[in-house]
Amino acid sequence: MIDRPLHQLSAAEVAAAVSSGRVNCEAVARACLERVEQRESIVRAWSFLDPDLVLRQARLLDAQPRGGALYGVPVGVKDVIDTHDMPTGMGSPIYRGYRPRADASIVALLRAQGALIFGKTVTCEFAFVAPGPTTNPHDSSRTPGGSSSGSAVAVADYMVPLAIGTQTGGSLLRPASYCGVVGYKPTFGLVNRAGVKQAAESLDTLGFMVRTVEDAAIACAAVTNAAPVDWLLAHRPLTIGLCRTHLWDGAQDETRQAIDDSVQRLAGAGVTVREAELPAFFAAALSSAREIINDYERARSMVHEWTHHPDAISESLKRSIRNGLLTPRARFVDALAAVERCRAALPAVFDGVDALLTPSVAGEAPLGLEWTGDHRFQSLWTMLHTPTITLPTHTGLQGLPVGIQLVAPLYADNHLLAIARRVFDLLGRGG
Amino acid sequence: MIDRPLHQLSAAEVAAAVSSGRVNCEAVARACLERVEQRESIVRAWSFLDPDLVLRQARLLDAQPRGGALYGVPVGVKDVIDTHDMPTGMGSPIYRGYRPRADASIVALLRAQGALIFGKTVTCEFAFVAPGPTTNPHDSSRTPGGSSSGSAVAVADYMVPLAIGTQTGGSLLRPASYCGVVGYKPTFGLVNRAGVKQAAESLDTLGFMVRTVEDAAIACAAVTNAAPVDWLLAHRPLTIGLCRTHLWDGAQDETRQAIDDSVQRLAGAGVTVREAELPAFFAAALSSAREIINDYERARSMVHEWTHHPDAISESLKRSIRNGLLTPRARFVDALAAVERCRAALPAVFDGVDALLTPSVAGEAPLGLEWTGDHRFQSLWTMLHTPTITLPTHTGLQGLPVGIQLVAPLYADNHLLAIARRVFDLLGRGG
Repeated sequence: MIDRPLHQLSAAEVAAAVSSGRVNCEAVARACLERVEQRESIVRAWSFLDPDLVLRQARLLDAQPRGGALYGVPVGVKDVIDTHDMPTGMGSPIYRGYRPRADASIVALLRAQGALIFGKTVTCEFAFVAPGPTTNPHDSSRTPGGSSSGSAVAVADYMVPLAIGTQTGGSLLRPASYCGVVGYKPTFGLVNRAGVKQAAESLDTLGFMVRTVEDAAIACAAVTNAAPVDWLLAHRPLTIGLCRTHLWDGAQDETRQAIDDSVQRLAGAGVTVREAELPAFFAAALSSAREIINDYERARSMVHEWTHHPDAISESLKRSIRNGLLTPRARFVDALAAVERCRAALPAVFDGVDALLTPSVAGEAPLGLEWTGDHRFQSLWTMLHTPTITLPTHTGLQGLPVGIQLVAPLYADNHLLAIARRVFDLLGRGG
Repeated sequence: MIDRPLHQLSAAEVAAAVSSGRVNCEAVARACLERVEQRESIVRAWSFLDPDLVLRQARLLDAQPRGGALYGVPVGVKDVIDTHDMPTGMGSPIYRGYRPRADASIVALLRAQGALIFGKTVTCEFAFVAPGPTTNPHDSSRTPGGSSSGSAVAVADYMVPLAIGTQTGGSLLRPASYCGVVGYKPTFGLVNRAGVKQAAESLDTLGFMVRTVEDAAIACAAVTNAAPVDWLLAHRPLTIGLCRTHLWDGAQDETRQAIDDSVQRLAGAGVTVREAELPAFFAAALSSAREIINDYERARSMVHEWTHHPDAISESLKRSIRNGLLTPRARFVDALAAVERCRAALPAVFDGVDALLTPSVAGEAPLGLEWTGDHRFQSLWTMLHTPTITLPTHTGLQGLPVGIQLVAPLYADNHLLAIARRVFDLLGRGG
């Protein structure tokens, strides 16, 4: 009745198949569990996965009246996001086996839409930079990116159609790009963060790892009560602003080629592409402000752990905490003000364009598992609070995925998703 | 050696006395515990207080080398703020006896400065409107205000010199004004919120209940690493903007008199006072946006409790959650945009004035314990994210405290505190 293995279905396909009665939740869950069984020893995407709990949930869903946009959809949850029925380990020995009292807001909202919370995905230590054991599904000698490593891999490797993650620097879009999935960071403030371990509170944003743009739209609408995306919007004449950014010189050949190829093919398909420049002051303002804000806020979210478990914190995180605790408030406030000036200048950047096209990453996933890669092409937009999405449209020189990034103005999330789907349709999947 | 009972000392006085060795932490703690013993059956400020734990902490502090701006200072903590060694009950049966894993950021930072976390203070249910058992220390038939009820009362009634609370609408400044203490809400985003139960995340702000402006400055500097306030700043010629706001018609006689008297006496003392008007569009924009943002965000922070314990949630909170879950995202985003337009117009309001003088509350604490009072004079500024402080300068027709509110531009917190201290010195304490 369904032409593909169930674990390969998108979230929308699972929900439709379950709702119409063509399959039940248990069958979908079993297919995903089998895929995990086959692949987990190589990719190590999960920090907690209890097949019995998955199947119990699936049977419970099968026994209930079906309803909700994500009915029966298995969802991976980054392990800094609280779940009341599974431990939340934060990628740190300090929280090994920790059982939160309640689900995070996003988890409870997904469950209310019928989602099956499948397991917890590996995160870097406290969503910062010290990596877990996860490997890139395309080449296990390479990083999957971080910090939402397990969420990207679980979706890329067809273990679940949907996973949630967080981005404070580049923690959604970088692993999505390295692993070859769609990574979507909504506008800052749209997705409620209750029950998520704080990294840097003025930057932390929840988002989605999926294999289709449609799934990103469904998942985000489910938790934010958004109107459905009007996909036809993007079939009007479209103008894309090519925004190389001040970071362009740091882009590797495969990223330059991905962008150049996208421009050429979009133009060939009738999309207007023109240059869009960030104001010159962005470069200095954002790069110095980022470290200051990140360290100042991160240090404050970690004071209890810093006081009680200093020896269980990695050196990289310790350095950030130490810096943050020493940072004078005035320096933090100056950094916030600098970023605010950039945000205020954004409308002019978007003037006359529907969205910006910009690199997702410097290049393919680097070799080795110790370093999760360069955050700068992603963190630029995290700081600006804009909605942003990476699409796995290209393949690099080593045969690994390379994403392209689309960015829209604040709160134009549905507009961004409509454009992203059209662009993805036009360019197709890389590789 | 010290001329007043120890429980009446300010935080600054306690820290100085302990640091110089004139008293030890245990003596201060015992004096505060005795005061609680005398008064708690009437005012019911505490949801958790274990005298043994207090004394153990005091002895531990006495055994250590003294250091930190708040060494030995007993601090009350609103019961929506996590503490690793005391339950955090959220003012709800759902969280009775709940033991969080870690201290909230602000608690850990206060402890790092030598503060003695004394106990948990009564909060309205999840920092919303359903009150706890706390009574107004000036008249036990009247509300202390909410939702930071216990924190205001514990400080007003000389049980502790410092307590922390949160404000999403008027939850710091209203109880402070009703109980006759200084209530200080820093600029949104200055005090880290990790480990605090979310109410509405774009509005929630941590702040301080104290008896002196100096203590507000010390406490805030301790957790934000701010430079000390330059108190002399406010001894330059000062211009205060009298901002009656569109809510003035709802102010009762005692509030009008408090404001009029303040204007007259400040002018008499050489302060320039001139009218400052909020743009006309603020009234409609802010009042409709508030309910929308509050319900939309609050509902999302409460989905787990709503799903698992609907019968343990008060009717008032249920109504807010139900509204919030039904609110379309577009309506929420429009409300955010309306508030953003007001924030963008604020610099002009502050043009040429050092701070605004505006009512703290409609009037004295209302009779009865069921309703914690009108939030509008406070929530106006919470929405604008400005730093704001209430000073207990006046007494109303029923002999109860009436505060006046001073407001400064975003991040001008130290400036606000300097002005507040000068104004408080000039006007004196009410009653």
